[in-house]
Amino acid sequence: MRLPDVQLHLRPGIIEFGWGHPDPALLPLDDLRRAARMAFIVYGADALAYGAEQGPGSLIAELCDLLAQRGVVPPSPETIFVTAGVSHAIDLLCTLYTRPGDVALVQAPVYHLALKILRDHGLTLVPVASDEHGLQPDALEAALHTLAQDGQHATLLYTIPTFANPTGSVLSAERRAAVVDIAVKYGLLVLEDDVYYDLWYDTPPPPPLAAYPHEGRVVRLGSFSKIVAPGLRLGWLQADPTIVQRCVTSGVIDSGGGINHLTAHIATSYVRHGYLTRHIDQLRASYRTRRDTLLAALAAHLPETCQVYHPGGGFFVWLSLPEDVDSAAFRMRAEAAGVSYLSGDRFYSNEQQSNAVRLAFSLLSPADLEEGAARLGRVLSE
Amino acid sequence: MRLPDVQLHLRPGIIEFGWGHPDPALLPLDDLRRAARMAFIVYGADALAYGAEQGPGSLIAELCDLLAQRGVVPPSPETIFVTAGVSHAIDLLCTLYTRPGDVALVQAPVYHLALKILRDHGLTLVPVASDEHGLQPDALEAALHTLAQDGQHATLLYTIPTFANPTGSVLSAERRAAVVDIAVKYGLLVLEDDVYYDLWYDTPPPPPLAAYPHEGRVVRLGSFSKIVAPGLRLGWLQADPTIVQRCVTSGVIDSGGGINHLTAHIATSYVRHGYLTRHIDQLRASYRTRRDTLLAALAAHLPETCQVYHPGGGFFVWLSLPEDVDSAAFRMRAEAAGVSYLSGDRFYSNEQQSNAVRLAFSLLSPADLEEGAARLGRVLSE
Repeated sequence: MRLPDVQLHLRPGIIEFGWGHPDPALLPLDDLRRAARMAFIVYGADALAYGAEQGPGSLIAELCDLLAQRGVVPPSPETIFVTAGVSHAIDLLCTLYTRPGDVALVQAPVYHLALKILRDHGLTLVPVASDEHGLQPDALEAALHTLAQDGQHATLLYTIPTFANPTGSVLSAERRAAVVDIAVKYGLLVLEDDVYYDLWYDTPPPPPLAAYPHEGRVVRLGSFSKIVAPGLRLGWLQADPTIVQRCVTSGVIDSGGGINHLTAHIATSYVRHGYLTRHIDQLRASYRTRRDTLLAALAAHLPETCQVYHPGGGFFVWLSLPEDVDSAAFRMRAEAAGVSYLSGDRFYSNEQQSNAVRLAFSLLSPADLEEGAARLGRVLSE
Repeated sequence: MRLPDVQLHLRPGIIEFGWGHPDPALLPLDDLRRAARMAFIVYGADALAYGAEQGPGSLIAELCDLLAQRGVVPPSPETIFVTAGVSHAIDLLCTLYTRPGDVALVQAPVYHLALKILRDHGLTLVPVASDEHGLQPDALEAALHTLAQDGQHATLLYTIPTFANPTGSVLSAERRAAVVDIAVKYGLLVLEDDVYYDLWYDTPPPPPLAAYPHEGRVVRLGSFSKIVAPGLRLGWLQADPTIVQRCVTSGVIDSGGGINHLTAHIATSYVRHGYLTRHIDQLRASYRTRRDTLLAALAAHLPETCQVYHPGGGFFVWLSLPEDVDSAAFRMRAEAAGVSYLSGDRFYSNEQQSNAVRLAFSLLSPADLEEGAARLGRVLSE
């Protein structure tokens, strides 16, 4: 038996809209190879030792520069902690800040595998409605109010304010301010999953939640997975220094040293040599073309009873099928017609039935996006 | 402010026996650089994608070969899960198999930072005595019996059977069989931390606990940190396939894909080209010399009221100071004399006072080991 090397597995004859992975052809193989070579030369044995708990100072310095270019408040080094990506950051923060039975508020719909991480920690998930402008502050406050009436409180809120997975929605600036105010008022720890922030295709998004005055309540989660390569397993969190220090002094970090230390040095070299900024520009151009191709093909092929949300960035198009269609059940028919997707129910903590589907345009070539939309149109018209 | 890159920080004028780190001069920089170059060539974009959840099949195949050479039962691929090292493995298993308030039995004394990981998960730690032949089966069964009388049971046992940190002790073959029998009888999950197994300097150790019939109760934890480089942040666990599958289907792995995917491919190249086997031979020779140098220097310089445990492998010499010395308090005097160590109390879950100290010989040159022992002898004779 030989096990696979990668997570992606494609089925012959099926155009897979289900995988929110980058196209392997867009991974910056040559530049990362150069960065790796430089990291061995520049850092030598330091890149192979137990790493500083917070992450290498060299990478933290580069991240502060990067975030200052993109955010509003230039971060200081003591607010950054290097992670193995957003999934790891959520996992670590759950270990350190929650106990089983605690309530986690979660955007609905939202990234299904983040919900799985929260569930592994025994958290009780309470959905908070979102619409085309993102999380609804009224719904957030109502959920907190209801909990308070039951003598409960929520420990954290998990949300993707910018180019959300799965809907592509962007939380408006006014709602950002309102969400942060509510978090401060109720003592909520907000996990702001912001992995798509730099992947805008029309206009830059509003400042992140972490840019609003939040009294230490917002932890912004970033990652190299979408903007460089997921195989690096590298990201960062930006948070109040007390939260960074709790991570730094955790047992797992104290024992093993900083996360992914060698890879962190490769990433430092990659960023320092200007590869990242150039690569993000290339990704924007490629993904913009793919998004536009998919949207045009959906407009051409889908029946008028479907509704398509037009995302301004990220990896996903959120598509509502006709109201009487259960998108989970319909997937079998779609796959028989050679096209697949993730059904909307997957993205709700209560797995409620949904007529929506998530189409990822990050993995597929423009030709496949076009053909996939045509197949979806055909099976929906039957 | 520029933050440090590495975890190690040495104080001028002090010979630091406290750090259980490998000597940076022993890290295989050139071979890892070659392995990294090969990984980019051989695996290309596959090394940069989301990794297979269990770890790359190529690395798992190499690990099965390696473990078959060193263990008793050749492992099959479905019993291996790639981790970010032992610390990460303990952390993940605690998330998936324990809840706060659960009881974890822990060898006493044992690696202090593993205790810290268990505590982060809210576990109640119950010590089990060990001596120069390792964990005492009678003490283990007595602890379980006492718990049962209180209506409690233990969820897991954390132990280092081979060249233990901090004592260097090796669990005898008879005791191994007895410990595994007790684990089966009481339904204990045994975390066998076996990072020093290959670093024997006299004779090979007995088979690991995982080689005894254990009905799926033993999880053996291995790592590249001590035998290649800690900065790789890479290890593995060997366990019953149901445990491997629980790791594979956890939220954090499902979401982020396999652990440290790029680094895992570098490690595969490193192992496949025969670098590992050669490097372990070199490490054995280097560390054997250091151990012998330290033991000889301690024999020459320490007063007769001290007792030295002679380890057959690993990184540590366990030294009992005269019985009336509190080694934690005495450390200030030692440091004033230019020598430091970790005091014994650190390695007990109840932090009981101890007259013992842990001396790591992995980091220091033979000359420093000699001088450090001389300084320790002087301050003890005062």
